Amino acid sequence: MGQYPSKVYLNGEIVDHQNARVSVFDRGFLFGDGIYEVMVQLDGSFFYEKAHLQRLSDCLQKISIAFDVNTLPARIQDLLRASGLQEKDCLLYIQVTRGTAPRKHAFPTNVPPTVMMYALPHVLPDINTNDTSAITMPDFRWSRCDIKMTSLLGNVMANDTAIKQGAFEAVLVRDGKITEASHCNVFFVRDSIVHTHPADEHILNGITRQIVIKLCADLGLEVREEAVRQTDIAHMDEAFLTGTTTQIASVRQIDTHVFYSDGNAGKVTRRLQEAFFELKKGMKKVLQD
Amino acid sequence: MGQYPSKVYLNGEIVDHQNARVSVFDRGFLFGDGIYEVMVQLDGSFFYEKAHLQRLSDCLQKISIAFDVNTLPARIQDLLRASGLQEKDCLLYIQVTRGTAPRKHAFPTNVPPTVMMYALPHVLPDINTNDTSAITMPDFRWSRCDIKMTSLLGNVMANDTAIKQGAFEAVLVRDGKITEASHCNVFFVRDSIVHTHPADEHILNGITRQIVIKLCADLGLEVREEAVRQTDIAHMDEAFLTGTTTQIASVRQIDTHVFYSDGNAGKVTRRLQEAFFELKKGMKKVLQD
Repeated sequence: MGQYPSKVYLNGEIVDHQNARVSVFDRGFLFGDGIYEVMVQLDGSFFYEKAHLQRLSDCLQKISIAFDVNTLPARIQDLLRASGLQEKDCLLYIQVTRGTAPRKHAFPTNVPPTVMMYALPHVLPDINTNDTSAITMPDFRWSRCDIKMTSLLGNVMANDTAIKQGAFEAVLVRDGKITEASHCNVFFVRDSIVHTHPADEHILNGITRQIVIKLCADLGLEVREEAVRQTDIAHMDEAFLTGTTTQIASVRQIDTHVFYSDGNAGKVTRRLQEAFFELKKGMKKVLQD
Repeated sequence: MGQYPSKVYLNGEIVDHQNARVSVFDRGFLFGDGIYEVMVQLDGSFFYEKAHLQRLSDCLQKISIAFDVNTLPARIQDLLRASGLQEKDCLLYIQVTRGTAPRKHAFPTNVPPTVMMYALPHVLPDINTNDTSAITMPDFRWSRCDIKMTSLLGNVMANDTAIKQGAFEAVLVRDGKITEASHCNVFFVRDSIVHTHPADEHILNGITRQIVIKLCADLGLEVREEAVRQTDIAHMDEAFLTGTTTQIASVRQIDTHVFYSDGNAGKVTRRLQEAFFELKKGMKKVLQD
């Protein structure tokens, strides 16, 4: 069931995970009123750190939590040092909530945000060679999925449904169109053209999603940021998922539709996985970082 | 900005509010993965306690959290005693989350739920004589609003927008139709017929909402559980909000449409407020409790 980190950063202090506690009046606990971010360190530095911190800052601004993300990098280094993970491959989780106040829906004033972070050893494979499967489900989440919030009940319910059916992910369908998955973005390939939902308020604009779109341009692959209809899944040649820890995961099957068997992932997916590997190794560079 | 309770019940213990802390790995904090309930004690007993505890149980079941709400009444009495509120008029808040586990979307197994409760002195007025105002906003929440969950970011954002515009509530509009408000149900009256959104997955089926529907039947008022269109607000004679602490609140104005002025609330709203008062005083009885 996963592991706890050795140390947790909480509001300026670094404590053992058993002692990392927040008030039950923290709005993160009462209302899911917070934003989170996940990034990975590889070869001694965080992969696209600026892009992740910028998104954290943007999301905090969208929900009017005042917090300067530029204070984080120094605190992250303190945490990594205390966790024995300095320059080591690891995953970093960051959560910022609106802070602690007596329960009332409207935002409290003059309350400092709660900042919590932890790091866990995590070595990304060079290439994610897993063949994943997914189920489709109605996208019953809210209409501001561009906000990476901790009010995640919809996402965890969808993910749990997928896991219980032996799948890796739940691919979500809104008004007949595929938006994204419970914690990944979704891409399809047909006739060497790459399709994915546009970055509007129905999806989170993943950092890996943005990188993949740039890699496609590098490789001369046309990308259409247009949603694929659920009824068109069977007409697609390939499907893959993207995410910070998922990287690029080939999808073997969605519901009863099988894209391939025998680990024989699609050509475009494999080219993108290789290009992503080269990017991680510093052989390529896309997006500002 | 409200007050903290003196005591908090947390997982079997009663502690001072300053010491009521949960792990940052509680899924209530990481994912908004919990259910809550609010009820009020009047004249020595909780108003429609059975209905509230039944709804808590139903909602927990909807998201697969195993917890027996029948264990609560004895614990509630312990809490009230410790809080100096036994048999006193007060508000009780109950929150049950999926418990504490390393962060992973899918539900953990064999983890006990977290149970948190607190009571605050709260005297309901005989009749809520406030003239409230509301703004309309797009209902951007998820499609399972029948679940009283703690992933409430959408609700708190909507409520905060209303408060900042000097209104009491945000009335939410989905596909042109009024669903409910950020923490109340909404009713309209036209030609003495009472209209409210049906109790489907787009609204929480409030206990006060259910009581009001029964009171209408008692009073010979026709109720149509059909949504009112936003464009029809101006054609309505009266509007009111219902909720556990709001009781029945007359709405003077929605956006620029003024229903009445000078505290002159509509006739049907006032009849229902009086009938609700009689119900509280034990002069009437509706719903099983």
